[in-house]
Amino acid sequence: MIVRNKPRIWELAFALRGSVVPHIAGPLLSLVLIAGALVWLEQSYHPLPAIDATPFTVFGIALSLFLGFRNNAAYDRWWEARRLWGGLLADLRSFAREARLFVQDEPLRREMLEVALSFLHLHRASLRRRTEAIEDGLAEFRDAAHPPDAALDRLGQLMAGALARGAIDGFGARTLSARLSSMALQQAGCERIAGTPLPFVYSLLIYRTTYLYCLMLPLALIGAAGWLTPLFVGVAAYVFLGLAEVSEELSQPFGDNVNALPLDAICRAAEISLAPHLGQQAPAPLLPKDFHLT
Amino acid sequence: MIVRNKPRIWELAFALRGSVVPHIAGPLLSLVLIAGALVWLEQSYHPLPAIDATPFTVFGIALSLFLGFRNNAAYDRWWEARRLWGGLLADLRSFAREARLFVQDEPLRREMLEVALSFLHLHRASLRRRTEAIEDGLAEFRDAAHPPDAALDRLGQLMAGALARGAIDGFGARTLSARLSSMALQQAGCERIAGTPLPFVYSLLIYRTTYLYCLMLPLALIGAAGWLTPLFVGVAAYVFLGLAEVSEELSQPFGDNVNALPLDAICRAAEISLAPHLGQQAPAPLLPKDFHLT
Amino acid sequence: MIVRNKPRIWELAFALRGSVVPHIAGPLLSLVLIAGALVWLEQSYHPLPAIDATPFTVFGIALSLFLGFRNNAAYDRWWEARRLWGGLLADLRSFAREARLFVQDEPLRREMLEVALSFLHLHRASLRRRTEAIEDGLAEFRDAAHPPDAALDRLGQLMAGALARGAIDGFGARTLSARLSSMALQQAGCERIAGTPLPFVYSLLIYRTTYLYCLMLPLALIGAAGWLTPLFVGVAAYVFLGLAEVSEELSQPFGDNVNALPLDAICRAAEISLAPHLGQQAPAPLLPKDFHLT
Amino acid sequence: MIVRNKPRIWELAFALRGSVVPHIAGPLLSLVLIAGALVWLEQSYHPLPAIDATPFTVFGIALSLFLGFRNNAAYDRWWEARRLWGGLLADLRSFAREARLFVQDEPLRREMLEVALSFLHLHRASLRRRTEAIEDGLAEFRDAAHPPDAALDRLGQLMAGALARGAIDGFGARTLSARLSSMALQQAGCERIAGTPLPFVYSLLIYRTTYLYCLMLPLALIGAAGWLTPLFVGVAAYVFLGLAEVSEELSQPFGDNVNALPLDAICRAAEISLAPHLGQQAPAPLLPKDFHLT
Amino acid sequence: MIVRNKPRIWELAFALRGSVVPHIAGPLLSLVLIAGALVWLEQSYHPLPAIDATPFTVFGIALSLFLGFRNNAAYDRWWEARRLWGGLLADLRSFAREARLFVQDEPLRREMLEVALSFLHLHRASLRRRTEAIEDGLAEFRDAAHPPDAALDRLGQLMAGALARGAIDGFGARTLSARLSSMALQQAGCERIAGTPLPFVYSLLIYRTTYLYCLMLPLALIGAAGWLTPLFVGVAAYVFLGLAEVSEELSQPFGDNVNALPLDAICRAAEISLAPHLGQQAPAPLLPKDFHLT
Repeated sequence: MIVRNKPRIWELAFALRGSVVPHIAGPLLSLVLIAGALVWLEQSYHPLPAIDATPFTVFGIALSLFLGFRNNAAYDRWWEARRLWGGLLADLRSFAREARLFVQDEPLRREMLEVALSFLHLHRASLRRRTEAIEDGLAEFRDAAHPPDAALDRLGQLMAGALARGAIDGFGARTLSARLSSMALQQAGCERIAGTPLPFVYSLLIYRTTYLYCLMLPLALIGAAGWLTPLFVGVAAYVFLGLAEVSEELSQPFGDNVNALPLDAICRAAEISLAPHLGQQAPAPLLPKDFHLT
Repeated sequence: MIVRNKPRIWELAFALRGSVVPHIAGPLLSLVLIAGALVWLEQSYHPLPAIDATPFTVFGIALSLFLGFRNNAAYDRWWEARRLWGGLLADLRSFAREARLFVQDEPLRREMLEVALSFLHLHRASLRRRTEAIEDGLAEFRDAAHPPDAALDRLGQLMAGALARGAIDGFGARTLSARLSSMALQQAGCERIAGTPLPFVYSLLIYRTTYLYCLMLPLALIGAAGWLTPLFVGVAAYVFLGLAEVSEELSQPFGDNVNALPLDAICRAAEISLAPHLGQQAPAPLLPKDFHLT
Repeated sequence: MIVRNKPRIWELAFALRGSVVPHIAGPLLSLVLIAGALVWLEQSYHPLPAIDATPFTVFGIALSLFLGFRNNAAYDRWWEARRLWGGLLADLRSFAREARLFVQDEPLRREMLEVALSFLHLHRASLRRRTEAIEDGLAEFRDAAHPPDAALDRLGQLMAGALARGAIDGFGARTLSARLSSMALQQAGCERIAGTPLPFVYSLLIYRTTYLYCLMLPLALIGAAGWLTPLFVGVAAYVFLGLAEVSEELSQPFGDNVNALPLDAICRAAEISLAPHLGQQAPAPLLPKDFHLT
Repeated sequence: MIVRNKPRIWELAFALRGSVVPHIAGPLLSLVLIAGALVWLEQSYHPLPAIDATPFTVFGIALSLFLGFRNNAAYDRWWEARRLWGGLLADLRSFAREARLFVQDEPLRREMLEVALSFLHLHRASLRRRTEAIEDGLAEFRDAAHPPDAALDRLGQLMAGALARGAIDGFGARTLSARLSSMALQQAGCERIAGTPLPFVYSLLIYRTTYLYCLMLPLALIGAAGWLTPLFVGVAAYVFLGLAEVSEELSQPFGDNVNALPLDAICRAAEISLAPHLGQQAPAPLLPKDFHLT
Repeated sequence: MIVRNKPRIWELAFALRGSVVPHIAGPLLSLVLIAGALVWLEQSYHPLPAIDATPFTVFGIALSLFLGFRNNAAYDRWWEARRLWGGLLADLRSFAREARLFVQDEPLRREMLEVALSFLHLHRASLRRRTEAIEDGLAEFRDAAHPPDAALDRLGQLMAGALARGAIDGFGARTLSARLSSMALQQAGCERIAGTPLPFVYSLLIYRTTYLYCLMLPLALIGAAGWLTPLFVGVAAYVFLGLAEVSEELSQPFGDNVNALPLDAICRAAEISLAPHLGQQAPAPLLPKDFHLT
């Protein structure tokens, strides 16, 4: 995630960090060059049909609406993913407090909290489809068919054992298992977002329409705008391709692009909150590097 | 569901898998031919009234808004259906853990989990209105008036028996029955989506308006665009009919089109998660074939 | 509710069942005739001021946005009502299972389920403001100030009696009363929708604006479109009046129009689900007649 | 709240009850007169610059979008307020049933219900910032810093006393206090809406933009429309000022305008539902007077 | 938060308090001056290419849609933040009542309520990144890694101690810990909003597009509008930059701008509600100063 204040005037002109321009520079340049070539053709041989700009108004508005829809959907996915991780953070904190309340057995409680933290790290690694990052403490779950699930199953086993030998009572079992199922719900929500992309048919429809629009736009502008045509085409392509690219990135909130959610930082926040319960020194919060928080 | 990365430039031009073009090729071609015929008529005999393009702007914007509304509603149905199945997956995982916690009787617990998995398969078959796919293990429920309901009723009976003979206590009964009612709520949500289509009157209104628009559009373009008219009509028809068709498909998330939800894969995910609780080897996750995940 | 597949080409031209055309035929025809009269006046005496079409663009877009807002609000009411009834169906099924779990007294349980079904029928009749349809078994509640409420009160009394004499324990009382209050919440939600129409001021604002637009539109078209003017006015009136009428109907999901929710079919689904718990044969599900499901 | 059927043709022309016209008549007339004066100036001395209407298209569309946003936000506030009161009604009904279940002490239960009804009346008076309307029975809470809160505190005290002397058990205490906290949540929601207006900066931005638009519009129309200019300006002002005024009213759902929520009628519905529990005759429901339900 | 009635006519012209004009005065003036310079250039040397205004329609509509999206997202953040604080207020009130019900030990209960109030103040200070404002009573938590978390942990410890020595029973522990976890969820929600800004890429995209639009707009207007061009550019810049600035402020509901949420007033409301439970005199509610409520 890019953490940066409102852009200042000079940043507007030159900021690249967090900008979408580098991602769309290729197609952008191509479309501008094509428009330039058409103007040169027109100026030299007058071969192009002149078209009223009005049909492009409807076309452009329709395109804006489709891009707007996809952008909304992508942003909703991103924000829902953030909300789910916020919920997981709250769940871990509440789990620590509820364990304090209902589990008198200090080592058992500590083990529970450590497994819960492992779950969070495994869940993060699973969403990002990374395995190399798993630390030693998590080795127990590494080879499971579904590592985060295995961690939660382990938590369930700890509770079952505690209930069976009377270390927690019915109230405690009900409270702690409700917390566990809340974590499982948020986990399934994250997996849903990670595993179900926006319908591919939208991408095709929108990218096809955007390129068609930018390729045909010179026909409408060339008469009135002359050599300003490539500029207008460039601006239109920047706006439409830029938004399409942003939607693409935000719709994958667990990806490896700069707009992805700062899962490392949220996991660190959970470690900070659980440190007093584990009798540990709280680690320092993660800070953005070059405006980028991972 | 189509699982495919962001389309590359050459895919934009030629990709058919996951594209809406094959579904609308007929009407699209007809509209283009009609537009061509009108241009030929105009060029040969000049019989057509020339209309300012402005009224088409309002018409086109209104059409975009209506299509946008229907598309939003269809996508919401699709995404809500996905959320409900994600919730069912989380419920099954939590059910397994809660059964571990509150049910000491190993065979009973195993039977409960098997019935819960049967419920999921029956629910999937019921939503897709398929019966041939039901496996042997589910034969018990096949002839019920409402098979998934019968499976949940069986689960309820198992719990009632267990409570009556003291195999679970009040806390366990309350926890497990709450889980059961959560599954029933998600099941009813899916049946609501499957059984209540988008109001038919919208389809009529939108298809009628789209065809009227594409049939009348040549009148506005023919003067300025000449032989480019069929191209413009084709683009407009592609955008509007394409979106209408996508909405139609997404609004039936349990249908048999390629954009339908991958219920088979979600059921498999549930089997993977429940395998350790059943003492079984986890099966392999389902993978997309030719970009298509069922 | 109209249950019909995606319209085919020839249905687009002629389908009336589920169409909004019959409801707006009068105003539609009047507006077309007025436009025709204006053209005749213009052609015969040239008395009309010619207006640029541009102001109508803004007017039309504003109108589209207002209609779009009202349509969204109406559809949300319709869909929320459907969701509430889906929730009631899930509640009844869960109630039957929870009663099975916590109530050992067979006749009491049966009486509870029968009262719960009575509640559903009374709730439906109350929303549709019908009384003649109440069957014999519900006579007990017919004369209450608020019949569905009286049925739920009776359920509460049955539980209170059972708890007082030890037929259910604290866990059962808590579970069953939570289910009861969930039903009461959904009931109040339905009554909210039935009793609180969309603000009347929107209807006035939107119908007034729509008629003004269609009456003034000929002034903008008459110069360029000539005798096509009535056609354009007709199309615009069809789109705008049609959407206004659809919004009107969908905003009353418990009314007696063809787009109203199929409450009879949902009640029947509840009867099918509860039949095994009552030891009865499940009745057949309701099917649409002439595409219409009540 | 105005309760009125879909307006008929003649009502469209003349209905004032529930219409927004009387509220905006002053500014509307002023803008029309200014436009008329500009036409007279133009016709007599030709001093005005003629402007293409196109910039007004963008201006008008931007204005429509902003008004649309504010209207959405205002309607959401209104509908959320209605939902909260619907939830309170359901809560009171469920509270009565839960008290019946868990509180055997008849006078105590009756006192609880009476305090709960007092809470509802005090909450209504507090939202409407009225104090004269408080009846005798509520005198106990009148002088508290926050009267509805004091009523809920009293309910809490009654429960605490009952639990302390064994009149309710743990299950009852948990159920009733959960109901109490649900009421408190809905109460806080209503206070949030009543105490947090829509950001003032939107009102400024929107009213300023609307007036600028209507004042500048004659410049674009005067050439083509001549003496029809004031008519067009009047229609635009009616649409934009009308919507701004409606948003203003709906955003204050507890105000004293005719679109405010019918809190008196909802309180009466609660009295009707609680009457059987209090052993009283149910009062008659409130009916609208001159289409107005308070 | 600005608390002010609907602006009157003369306030529309001159109100600065709560207006966005002072924040955008610099860029606004620059754009107007640049437009003026271009007109002077055009009038003196006729060097500028004349462009049809139509491409600006699409550009302007696209810009409106993007600004509309960002504005929606920003307002949703603001309103969600307000809802979370409303929920915290309800939670504190319910916590006081539940403590009254389940905790008989008067001093313990009082300590719990004081810690809960401390949590609210620390949470407010943490969101606003202020530390100087922390009062003496909160010194205990000031040096913790996460002060509000430390306060909630202290609450958890008090409960755990009480449960261990029998001062509360299982029902009380479950009820109070559920309340605690509800507070933690709302706290995490606020931290999510405070710590996750709107994606920076939107700001870049929108500010860049807005400036490009306002800089290029003179090219389209200069021919028809002449010396009115700077006026039109000024209005467009006011509308677009104004909305961008408002979105920026509202998206940071815990910031130090005048549109930020009145957290001080909400904390005071909590103190007023808890005063009777602490046996204290309720303080006076906070009132806005110069229309500004902090």
